[in-house]
Amino acid sequence: MLEPDQLSLNIPETKKPRLVIVGGGFGGINLAKKLSGKNFQVVMFDRQNYHGFWPLLYQVATGGLEPDSIAEPLRKMFSSDDYEDFHFRLVKVTGIHPETKTVSTLIGDIAYDYLVIATGTKPNYFGNDQIKKYAFPLKQVPEALNLRSQVLQCFEQANMTKDPATRQSLLNFVIVGGGPTGVELAGALAEMRKHVLPTDYPGLDFTQMNIILVEGLDRVLPPMSEQASAKTHKYLAELGVDIRLNTLVAGYDGEIATFKSGEQIQTNTLIWAAGVSGAVIDGLPEATVERGRILVNDFNQVLGFDNIFAIGDVALMKTPEFPKGHPGVAQPAIQQGKLLAKNLKHILRNEPLEPFKYNDKGSLAIIGRNRAVADLPKNLHFGGFLAWAIWLFVHVMALVGFRNKLVVLSNWVYKFFTYENGTRLIIRPFYRRDDRAKRKFIEKYNAD
Amino acid sequence: MLEPDQLSLNIPETKKPRLVIVGGGFGGINLAKKLSGKNFQVVMFDRQNYHGFWPLLYQVATGGLEPDSIAEPLRKMFSSDDYEDFHFRLVKVTGIHPETKTVSTLIGDIAYDYLVIATGTKPNYFGNDQIKKYAFPLKQVPEALNLRSQVLQCFEQANMTKDPATRQSLLNFVIVGGGPTGVELAGALAEMRKHVLPTDYPGLDFTQMNIILVEGLDRVLPPMSEQASAKTHKYLAELGVDIRLNTLVAGYDGEIATFKSGEQIQTNTLIWAAGVSGAVIDGLPEATVERGRILVNDFNQVLGFDNIFAIGDVALMKTPEFPKGHPGVAQPAIQQGKLLAKNLKHILRNEPLEPFKYNDKGSLAIIGRNRAVADLPKNLHFGGFLAWAIWLFVHVMALVGFRNKLVVLSNWVYKFFTYENGTRLIIRPFYRRDDRAKRKFIEKYNAD
Repeated sequence: MLEPDQLSLNIPETKKPRLVIVGGGFGGINLAKKLSGKNFQVVMFDRQNYHGFWPLLYQVATGGLEPDSIAEPLRKMFSSDDYEDFHFRLVKVTGIHPETKTVSTLIGDIAYDYLVIATGTKPNYFGNDQIKKYAFPLKQVPEALNLRSQVLQCFEQANMTKDPATRQSLLNFVIVGGGPTGVELAGALAEMRKHVLPTDYPGLDFTQMNIILVEGLDRVLPPMSEQASAKTHKYLAELGVDIRLNTLVAGYDGEIATFKSGEQIQTNTLIWAAGVSGAVIDGLPEATVERGRILVNDFNQVLGFDNIFAIGDVALMKTPEFPKGHPGVAQPAIQQGKLLAKNLKHILRNEPLEPFKYNDKGSLAIIGRNRAVADLPKNLHFGGFLAWAIWLFVHVMALVGFRNKLVVLSNWVYKFFTYENGTRLIIRPFYRRDDRAKRKFIEKYNAD
Repeated sequence: MLEPDQLSLNIPETKKPRLVIVGGGFGGINLAKKLSGKNFQVVMFDRQNYHGFWPLLYQVATGGLEPDSIAEPLRKMFSSDDYEDFHFRLVKVTGIHPETKTVSTLIGDIAYDYLVIATGTKPNYFGNDQIKKYAFPLKQVPEALNLRSQVLQCFEQANMTKDPATRQSLLNFVIVGGGPTGVELAGALAEMRKHVLPTDYPGLDFTQMNIILVEGLDRVLPPMSEQASAKTHKYLAELGVDIRLNTLVAGYDGEIATFKSGEQIQTNTLIWAAGVSGAVIDGLPEATVERGRILVNDFNQVLGFDNIFAIGDVALMKTPEFPKGHPGVAQPAIQQGKLLAKNLKHILRNEPLEPFKYNDKGSLAIIGRNRAVADLPKNLHFGGFLAWAIWLFVHVMALVGFRNKLVVLSNWVYKFFTYENGTRLIIRPFYRRDDRAKRKFIEKYNAD
């Protein structure tokens, strides 16, 4: 592939105002979908050529789904059949220059009339470089595939050692973070331990496999209701997950995880699902960034600017109802993206802007077969089979594209009847968790 | 993951004779499936944890299918529910020692009573290290994923350059080898050029995209009938593939492909589908290897041994009907695997062995939508829609597992009606075609 200095953005000149969207996540695509190219020239940048449905990423990591089932190519989503004057570029944005109204990318600068930052989040290791180096994150497709291969390779290798301590280390899986990702991952691993792994690895004793879920607060799923937390705790315990509440991880050197209490667990696999911070881009005034997120007003305008916006997880909109900002899930991003499309049209017509009002549709988390929890509006909390069925329905319907809906549904039906996680291939060309040099290469050349 | 010296094979002791199978391809799995563990302890080694249905690998490379649809985990295939005393180990075999009846692997040696070499083939670059370094092979799942990402990235980058020569180089795809892989790949790329790419990349002029198929002999699909070759040539030409017969590639430096004639083509992507040689393992006497394949008698016994066998592509069985060996396709491997299972049981019972007789079920190749060619027994040759329908049917039915059949069929039905190749994600964590150092790491530690 070519080096960045051989490339240029090649965005055609236009008489329409130019809207630059950084990020093809939930916020970015819902904004762009409402703008069919009639009022604005839309330029979208992303470092991936696809939109990912991240709530299902943990199923890619546990062999339940393939990446293509949860991801949709952005060019397919915005094909020229339906969207005119839409321009996608697979490139990393490196900085914002509000004074000149330009954005810098690895391969050149571009002027904008309106700029939307919809970059989402990145893992937050709270400054612990050792954990950053050795832990397995679960935020991107390659990371999910890498984790899947890691887990399967642990069993392969556990099968090939006679040393009890080594084997135990391979069979200990520590998941840091009791939010939705951590809980759903722990549940999926526990289901695999029951149904799939014992027949795959008759030489291993799966009572030795430990799934340890570590949460710093005093309950799992802290963003959900207490009822949901309690049910989830019960379900996970029934599935044999070792839950450690009020527990913080102090370090991990690739072999030993050390808790703040001093306790140590030997493990080859520590999965980091503990925290995220906004993927803020350089160039905004310091005063606009608070705790890693970009401060915006009710119209998602970045503090002090009327033509720069931030939406979704990277934005921090403080309201009386959400003084610390909206929850970091898909719905606020989707709703902010849609509203911003309206507001941009209002701006063109010199009309007043509409403030954002979050419509909380509720929260769901799946723990295992027939086990899920739901917090619905009007203080409706329940679990069990009904929550599980709702979870499946909501997630299939939310997927982009008919093909993805069909494939995911077929996979789940198949899995329900066969207890099988279909996809257990170990595929990782050149991926080693501790090889940050390669990762740097990727970041630099945008080759992920 | 652990280093090889921390691991050992851990195969349980047994009173049954031990059969070691190297390779989980068509030959290996058909042999093992017929031995349910009652007569032999079966030990299978492979460097991948899955069996791949390689005739469809080109569809993974062109975004038509996901890896999991064409691959089946070997442990799932031989789960303990159905196969007793079967032991799979994900490890590379490094040598054979007939004098001590042992096999060496990266993590230790093992004694065998019977040994079956079913390792298939590896790409043959005919000693040209430059081509080996820069060409894209298409023999394994990671290679197919890498090629898919490469092709898509070429379009992304072509869209981001104003230099006409650079753009042309990105839009030139040279496929070396006019056998089934080369032909099917050329056809699939040509179909994408017609249906998918123009709406994905409205900024590119796809009349500039060239698909150049290079074949050293005087016709495409040389292993098939002259009728099939002629039809294939016509179909490919109709699809706009630039076919160069009697043409040999002399070199490729990652930027310029040079033919023996001296002609040069600038291209970022040269795909090597030109030749294979047997993946022979060290340790057999020199006299047993001829042109990269292992000489076997009619019972697949390696020349000079009665307890070492070679089956499938790695074996060279010369018969009056096939003086140069059987064709390098799935059927001979499948049939030899099945027969060998019978013959191994004959050996246990001191019964005479049955000689191999190839049952040629015919050959098929698909070129594009509604276009395929078929050579069936009794000199039956035809093309067009009927051959295409047969190709689809045969390939779906040949897939291992109900899930794979279902998923592949759904994908094809979807594609037929929508003209869409569903899976166009660029996912390659740490894969760079010229990074042989990383490949060496993989080979050494068997981490693919």
